[in-house]
Amino acid sequence: MITVHAYVWARPEHADAYRAGLTALQESTLAHDPGCLAYACWESLTEPGAFVCVEEWTDRAALDAHLAAPHHTAGSAALDAYRARPADVRVFESRPIDL
Amino acid sequence: MITVHAYVWARPEHADAYRAGLTALQESTLAHDPGCLAYACWESLTEPGAFVCVEEWTDRAALDAHLAAPHHTAGSAALDAYRARPADVRVFESRPIDL
Repeated sequence: MITVHAYVWARPEHADAYRAGLTALQESTLAHDPGCLAYACWESLTEPGAFVCVEEWTDRAALDAHLAAPHHTAGSAALDAYRARPADVRVFESRPIDL
Repeated sequence: MITVHAYVWARPEHADAYRAGLTALQESTLAHDPGCLAYACWESLTEPGAFVCVEEWTDRAALDAHLAAPHHTAGSAALDAYRARPADVRVFESRPIDL
């Protein structure tokens, strides 16, 4: 499977708009994208304007389809105006193991 | 390497105390635990009282040492009083790949 830690940063004055955009992206992803095992966006406890999307996908094709999906390209573009700096998207080939 | 998505839930009336406890755990982990490549705690955009710790470790031994470390056992115990339900800790053997 594929896991993703997508770190993104909003300009502080746009944090509310960014939060709304991420929430919409979360909802549309969970509603539309096959192969999505988990997808949620979260806000930092310590760094204002910092967010992370934590994702689990069945395979690379599912992630690629998500990234190319119209809802994602539109949702991501809508956030561009609010970004403080480029995203840091960490992608992993992952195998679940016991704690 | 090892990645971890540790989902935890606070009783809403204790969210502030929980937030403070997670922040302290984040700081002590980053300060003390060798093999910690990333460790940050985040709050859900959509589910009140829901948090996730997103972690990267060099290997399993580093994660195990973290879990056994006095600062972690004490920090985690301090949060027990505020939990709404048991944690859902997802652990992965992970290999970084290009986006």
